[in-house]
Amino acid sequence: MTKTVGVLGGGQLGRMMVEPANRMKIPINILDVPGAPAKQISAHAGHIDGSFKDSESIKKLAQACDVITFEIEHINTKVLEELEGTVAIEPHWSTVRTIQDKYAQKEHLSSHGVAVAESISLDQATEDDLRSVGARYGYPFMLKSKTEAYDGKGNYPVKSAADIPDALKQLGSRPLYAEKWAEFKMELAVMAVKTSNGTLAYPTTETIHEDSICKLTYTPARGVSLEIRTAAEALAKKAVATFAGKGVFGVEMFLLADDTLLINEIAPRPHNSGHYTIEGTHVSQFEAHLRAITDLPLCEADLQLREPAAIMLNVLGGRTPDSHVDIYDRAKQTARVRIHDYGKAEARPGRKMGHLTVTAASMRDAEALINPLVAAVDAQKGREPSVPQSVAPQPLVAIIMGSDSDLPVLAPAFSILDSFKIPYETRITSAHRTPDWMYAFVTAAEARGFRAIIAAAGGAAHLPGMAAALTTLPVIGVPVKASVLDGVDSLYSIVQMPRGEPVATVGINNSTNAALLAARILGAADERVRKCLRDFYEEHHEEVLRKDARLLEVGPVAYLEAMRK
Amino acid sequence: MTKTVGVLGGGQLGRMMVEPANRMKIPINILDVPGAPAKQISAHAGHIDGSFKDSESIKKLAQACDVITFEIEHINTKVLEELEGTVAIEPHWSTVRTIQDKYAQKEHLSSHGVAVAESISLDQATEDDLRSVGARYGYPFMLKSKTEAYDGKGNYPVKSAADIPDALKQLGSRPLYAEKWAEFKMELAVMAVKTSNGTLAYPTTETIHEDSICKLTYTPARGVSLEIRTAAEALAKKAVATFAGKGVFGVEMFLLADDTLLINEIAPRPHNSGHYTIEGTHVSQFEAHLRAITDLPLCEADLQLREPAAIMLNVLGGRTPDSHVDIYDRAKQTARVRIHDYGKAEARPGRKMGHLTVTAASMRDAEALINPLVAAVDAQKGREPSVPQSVAPQPLVAIIMGSDSDLPVLAPAFSILDSFKIPYETRITSAHRTPDWMYAFVTAAEARGFRAIIAAAGGAAHLPGMAAALTTLPVIGVPVKASVLDGVDSLYSIVQMPRGEPVATVGINNSTNAALLAARILGAADERVRKCLRDFYEEHHEEVLRKDARLLEVGPVAYLEAMRK
Repeated sequence: MTKTVGVLGGGQLGRMMVEPANRMKIPINILDVPGAPAKQISAHAGHIDGSFKDSESIKKLAQACDVITFEIEHINTKVLEELEGTVAIEPHWSTVRTIQDKYAQKEHLSSHGVAVAESISLDQATEDDLRSVGARYGYPFMLKSKTEAYDGKGNYPVKSAADIPDALKQLGSRPLYAEKWAEFKMELAVMAVKTSNGTLAYPTTETIHEDSICKLTYTPARGVSLEIRTAAEALAKKAVATFAGKGVFGVEMFLLADDTLLINEIAPRPHNSGHYTIEGTHVSQFEAHLRAITDLPLCEADLQLREPAAIMLNVLGGRTPDSHVDIYDRAKQTARVRIHDYGKAEARPGRKMGHLTVTAASMRDAEALINPLVAAVDAQKGREPSVPQSVAPQPLVAIIMGSDSDLPVLAPAFSILDSFKIPYETRITSAHRTPDWMYAFVTAAEARGFRAIIAAAGGAAHLPGMAAALTTLPVIGVPVKASVLDGVDSLYSIVQMPRGEPVATVGINNSTNAALLAARILGAADERVRKCLRDFYEEHHEEVLRKDARLLEVGPVAYLEAMRK
Repeated sequence: MTKTVGVLGGGQLGRMMVEPANRMKIPINILDVPGAPAKQISAHAGHIDGSFKDSESIKKLAQACDVITFEIEHINTKVLEELEGTVAIEPHWSTVRTIQDKYAQKEHLSSHGVAVAESISLDQATEDDLRSVGARYGYPFMLKSKTEAYDGKGNYPVKSAADIPDALKQLGSRPLYAEKWAEFKMELAVMAVKTSNGTLAYPTTETIHEDSICKLTYTPARGVSLEIRTAAEALAKKAVATFAGKGVFGVEMFLLADDTLLINEIAPRPHNSGHYTIEGTHVSQFEAHLRAITDLPLCEADLQLREPAAIMLNVLGGRTPDSHVDIYDRAKQTARVRIHDYGKAEARPGRKMGHLTVTAASMRDAEALINPLVAAVDAQKGREPSVPQSVAPQPLVAIIMGSDSDLPVLAPAFSILDSFKIPYETRITSAHRTPDWMYAFVTAAEARGFRAIIAAAGGAAHLPGMAAALTTLPVIGVPVKASVLDGVDSLYSIVQMPRGEPVATVGINNSTNAALLAARILGAADERVRKCLRDFYEEHHEEVLRKDARLLEVGPVAYLEAMRK
């Protein structure tokens, strides 16, 4: 039996929930003003016109639905509490009530052993109270409203004691708390889904804020090790599992200088940091939310990326009513950019009007697609571009050697990779003279986006085997012919690795084959590279046939003479 | 300047055109009855209520739009001709007029040197006329209505002279033509896009029809060589380039027994065989159509698959009004299946009510996702399942050897691949004793979905090098220690390949490393495999540390004694 879903709020999150509901034939009724974004793409008589804060309208919606959810946490939880037992409410109203009060949220998380920034409740705070917070936490610290705070509204960074009077002037009438300043090196977010069978996590996303509003998200988070990403996903699941009810939660966190993670705040609904999932993952956060609240199956594999990288850029209202449309017009010039307009009538400056998403085979490729649009957004704001206008391509092959004397042997590899337009990075990393540098380079290679390593070495040739021992990337070994033993010493040192750490060894001095092997490895997942390989072999095939025809034509004696010239 | 688009017809194709229009803020007005599928997801006052065949309604639509297009070719081209100059019509009305008459369509293509099945015009045909067609083409031949024919309606396969009276009874009142029977081994389709800058093609799709209605599509077409797929795409582009105007065209073709291609028919609009593009490719056929007709940029790279395989299954109306909903309910049990309901009110048997799409990292994986749903569709029709209920996983690694005497050396490779759950296929393909079989196996390996080949050989070990010469897949060579020379003969034969054909050589008899190298190669594009590798190395790392701790604890003498027991 398909359940009818009712949504409090029909803004962009409601609208993006309606998209999969339309496709999946899930009946969905929206409570919001007529013509709200979500209603624009769902023309039926079952919607309710009214405010999602109005008790009577909420009750009217509940009567027509099997399960009630919401796109915003600033709702009337009293009426939801009253409705309990008459309609399913997901996630549970008590979850919303806890999360609505950011201080209560933090206390709830702390009490369940989830790491959050240290904070102190400050209702009816005086200047003296704030000065004692300053003495305790040091400056800066954050003064925050417990309720109705979003997109930086309701937060005040108290940089010194001199800020205290103004901070109280701005926020003094609200219920407050103070939070110790988190010296984070990065902001991360993980969308987690609480289902009837457990809590699942999407991949870890890096979020970039500007003027306290989310500007960009990068998934997976750039330059963050797998260990930290795994820890972030585990933390998000642990936190979300503490709340009652089902649905998607947005978990924002700080990555501190010492690589520990703190939860900043949690939203009990689809979240801006998960918009990339519409194209980026198999199941979007909006469909995942509908699945969770209507008890349809979902597993963590469904939440994985479809391509290796996804970037989302928010499009905000700007100086003119059409600023956001100008960004769309720019975005339309690249068909690889997916545009999501929210259908909002009025474009106030800073209002979220839409977003753009790109997905690609590497983060560098995704950045190359989005960066011109980030620059356009910055230019519209009259700011310097916050990202470089053009990026060098992601190097896919690392070519390392023990000594620059190996460079001439590697020259043919460079020209093959160049002709195939495969970006590579060449480094001298001696296993014997710079073991620490070799270790640092190779252990970072996978996170840096390399897909294969070519290592050349001669004599007691340890570099390829050491590299293979320090990474799970395929390592191709080129034995270099040294001054004695005709290269056999190098060959044996490279090929005769112990069971466990393979080196893909090619012939002595044969860096041509090393490059072609790297291309075959990349080609296993890249049709463009396979095409280059086919063209290469086609050309060589024809070259041999041409020579054979010439040999037949002129005979072996003349041919040999021509060769000797 | 964003152009306003008007669409004749608001069925499923119009609806799927509205989806990207909504997201991209492209104004779109639909001409169709109130509540038509496309209007359900586009609530605004600009639509026109009426028939897309009615002149006045079409004129009314044209007044409010910059460019007129259509989701169906059975439209009134006279009124479009009248409107020329007042509004852009894409593709051109003359294109629609030619394509509406299937015989005129064939004559048009023939006259432009595009291969079509042989056919003959038969207006007011008599039984004698048909008998002479039978004498000329042989039986069976196809009797077809020139106009208003779709989904098998208007076609009659004349199996023998005895069918002729009934064929005329069924179709005699319509303008007819007869077509020579095409003995095709497969039906293919290519979506092509005519833009202001040239004609582009999507990848070649395999289509499976049942009761003359498209049932399934597979992209890329299964088991079809790259050469044939490239030829199909070129043929589609050549054919579509002959028509006036811009937009997406569906090109259906036959692959004959001799691997030549014939065009069956062309639709001047988005097409059922391109529905997979919504999830399957970077830009869907619906967005591509909007881009083409409003002159937004598009290039062929935008039309490529995002994952290696995509399958679409149509959901038709069945025996009961809810048959199609039962299929959706089954589909919802797997979150990897994307559901597209069209919002049609009435579910007549055979009517297209919706479709399902899966995308995956291999065709075998995609089949494993869709096959239970194909079986559900078949069961609903009371048919035997047309596909196997479960499929073996796609083998990713081919392990070949010259002789079964090499099998014991390869045993460690099998257990590594088994423990990593990497499917593999093991074959005996001697380069010397079965050169033809070795050639056939290796040249087909890429199209069969293998990502790497492990080849073991001893003595004058030619198999790995020959394999490398016959494929662009990475080939891993395992030198097997034969009766003399301690395996050095095998090693040199494998590793010392000429420049051009690399073999990734591992140590003598070291098939462990061959399997780990294959895993590293697959891992370059598969996070699951990388995870297996990390776990493997973690375990081995800990094993060494455990041994070291034990050595420290008991001392070397006791340790050695324990080892000797």
